[in-house]
Amino acid sequence: MNIEQYMTELGQAARAASRVLLRANTEKKNRALLAIAEQLEDSAEMLQAENAKDLQAGQENGLDAAMLDRLALNDKVIAGMAEGLRQIAALQDPVGEISDMSFRPSGIQVGKMRVPLGVVGIIYESRPNVTVDAAALCLKSGNAAILRGGSEAKFSNQALAQCIAKGLEAADLPATAVQVVETTDREAVGHLIAMPEYVDVIIPRGGKGLIERISQGACVPVIKHLDGICHVYIDDDADFTKAIDVALNAKTHRYGVCNAMETLLVAESQAKKVLPELARLYAEKGVELRGCAKTCAIIAANPATDEDWATEYLAPILSIRVVEDVDMAMDHIAQYSSGHTESIITENFSTSRRFLAEVDSSSVMVNASTRFADGFEYGLGAEIGISTDKFHARGPVGLEGLTSLKYIVLGDGTIRK
Amino acid sequence: MNIEQYMTELGQAARAASRVLLRANTEKKNRALLAIAEQLEDSAEMLQAENAKDLQAGQENGLDAAMLDRLALNDKVIAGMAEGLRQIAALQDPVGEISDMSFRPSGIQVGKMRVPLGVVGIIYESRPNVTVDAAALCLKSGNAAILRGGSEAKFSNQALAQCIAKGLEAADLPATAVQVVETTDREAVGHLIAMPEYVDVIIPRGGKGLIERISQGACVPVIKHLDGICHVYIDDDADFTKAIDVALNAKTHRYGVCNAMETLLVAESQAKKVLPELARLYAEKGVELRGCAKTCAIIAANPATDEDWATEYLAPILSIRVVEDVDMAMDHIAQYSSGHTESIITENFSTSRRFLAEVDSSSVMVNASTRFADGFEYGLGAEIGISTDKFHARGPVGLEGLTSLKYIVLGDGTIRK
Repeated sequence: MNIEQYMTELGQAARAASRVLLRANTEKKNRALLAIAEQLEDSAEMLQAENAKDLQAGQENGLDAAMLDRLALNDKVIAGMAEGLRQIAALQDPVGEISDMSFRPSGIQVGKMRVPLGVVGIIYESRPNVTVDAAALCLKSGNAAILRGGSEAKFSNQALAQCIAKGLEAADLPATAVQVVETTDREAVGHLIAMPEYVDVIIPRGGKGLIERISQGACVPVIKHLDGICHVYIDDDADFTKAIDVALNAKTHRYGVCNAMETLLVAESQAKKVLPELARLYAEKGVELRGCAKTCAIIAANPATDEDWATEYLAPILSIRVVEDVDMAMDHIAQYSSGHTESIITENFSTSRRFLAEVDSSSVMVNASTRFADGFEYGLGAEIGISTDKFHARGPVGLEGLTSLKYIVLGDGTIRK
Repeated sequence: MNIEQYMTELGQAARAASRVLLRANTEKKNRALLAIAEQLEDSAEMLQAENAKDLQAGQENGLDAAMLDRLALNDKVIAGMAEGLRQIAALQDPVGEISDMSFRPSGIQVGKMRVPLGVVGIIYESRPNVTVDAAALCLKSGNAAILRGGSEAKFSNQALAQCIAKGLEAADLPATAVQVVETTDREAVGHLIAMPEYVDVIIPRGGKGLIERISQGACVPVIKHLDGICHVYIDDDADFTKAIDVALNAKTHRYGVCNAMETLLVAESQAKKVLPELARLYAEKGVELRGCAKTCAIIAANPATDEDWATEYLAPILSIRVVEDVDMAMDHIAQYSSGHTESIITENFSTSRRFLAEVDSSSVMVNASTRFADGFEYGLGAEIGISTDKFHARGPVGLEGLTSLKYIVLGDGTIRK
């Protein structure tokens, strides 16, 4: 196979399908989503037979148990994918929303209409259910999708692609509205991220290495989700109980997630009150503490290095720094945060207002756990990722993040004087 | 001078200044804008002495009269810059706007806050007043700016930079909030577009060549304004007078602008009615017509080639194509439009609705002249360019296009269950 030619053909087909999707009304898109859900349920046997090939290859290639678990299309995963499709069908369609229509002195009426981006390329690693989630979000938002999954899931992904294609056709939409790249050759990715005439945006989902590689090579916009080095700052005016509750929840609710707290900042005036209690609770959960000198003088902790402040542990490890005040806390955040999510614990109105305005992260919180930074918790209904960029979509990206706003102008034969 | 080191220092200073601007309230930013206006007016003599050096060099280098005219900082241009600054001071400050706050079942209250992008790099050609316009828009939207003007205007731009710095300092803002690159070496641009740690977005303003070069080399997002190949489509159900008025205005109001019509599409059923009258009116204005075979059978016109459909004339030339219906018109637009602005002339409700929804351009109009596609006409109050991209800002880009939305979350010690 000539991979460049193959990818060009996928791109052309996606561009053509995107024009059909742009015209497809909500009912038709929902019909396709529900038909795909049915296809998945009806094809469980086929899906699992194909998935078994990936699982066997994974075992032969020495994938660990956690990886194999993420790869498995068991009954529960299939039911989950079908349920996800039905939830996305139930969401409000963002396409065609008109806002801010107002008359101008010239006589024209100007406003904005929400429209699909066009063609979305998604590059992701092992978990095959991403194939269905991503397809569903693109479809509902009126975008054609080109999906490139990991080689570990190649049989599973092609089997899922068949179900998606059948569902699309059942709703009278082109099967090319969602295309799953057949080759697992890396060269295909190189072409996918460099076809601005056919692909409008790239969304990489996976480890930091993947995302950095894609971002550097892409010549179209990338919605990227890098590290989550999230901070909680316990302010001078923090309420004791709220501080303890949030600091505990933000670290220990789940460890391997991007919105978990990695560094706790504590105002000096609070340190002796909150740190001993927190140290006791973290110890119960088996969290390793790494502290600055002032922290280590109050509680038992390993000494933290500069590298700790810049590390996303994704593990039961927490770095703790005692700071003078909110300014020093915000300086620390400006230097070390990845721009994902930061939270302040305070009862002080003016301090909270400053923190909200001045901290430059995709989510900024007051008296709430960083674990809330999530598309479902924010009410987006679904999430294709969390953007740590400032451009276009920022924070959890749902259907709206897959659309753009164009201007519409209505007149009555109006001309410019 | 080591240019890489120089640009890195500019970048670091801009990043630091951006944190100060993020905190600056509306009153302070407006005070700086007004102080810059005063500085310009008070420094007319110095500005014109420095400008004279550019004008002399321009004459020696054989710049044509139009170029020299654009370069001149005469009294009227200086007054215009000062007036522009006062207008931007009068605009509403977009920074800090909070929207969509709603409570979620978990107890958190979630919404969005509008915040500056951070550091904006602007690369532009000859006209020195862009230095002031761009600085003012960035300042009002809370962004630090690094400006890189053309070598033809190097003395003028540095003189303007002095006025800007004094105005910033008068308002107690860092002079580094707006930096004008001192070297005209091309290498500086290469660094400016490749410092994602210091520069958040690049806006090139100038010819197509400049913009394509920047877009290809940049490793940060680019707000770009490429060609304006704008279409007017006279539909089967067009009102005769509106069709004539808009088709004439869109082409002849001004020729050298991106929102001028370059191709007129006419429904076959209308061609014999509207084309003779339009041909008469275009002839009065001295517009050269290039038509498809059907057009040439009705009126006197030169034959249009495929290249004509893809050309932004920026001149008194118009290509005309007779099409079967709105579908063929939209197909033509999908193939040849640059995604800037298209307008349909029709009295038909359903046809207008389809055109608005399906045409994928930054501005889509009904019964209005394409000449309205402009930040001032849309009520943005100012414009830093017109984006033909779909990502982030689309269409005329004003203050809002220089900001992004972050999520804010308010709680009461709320934790995730």
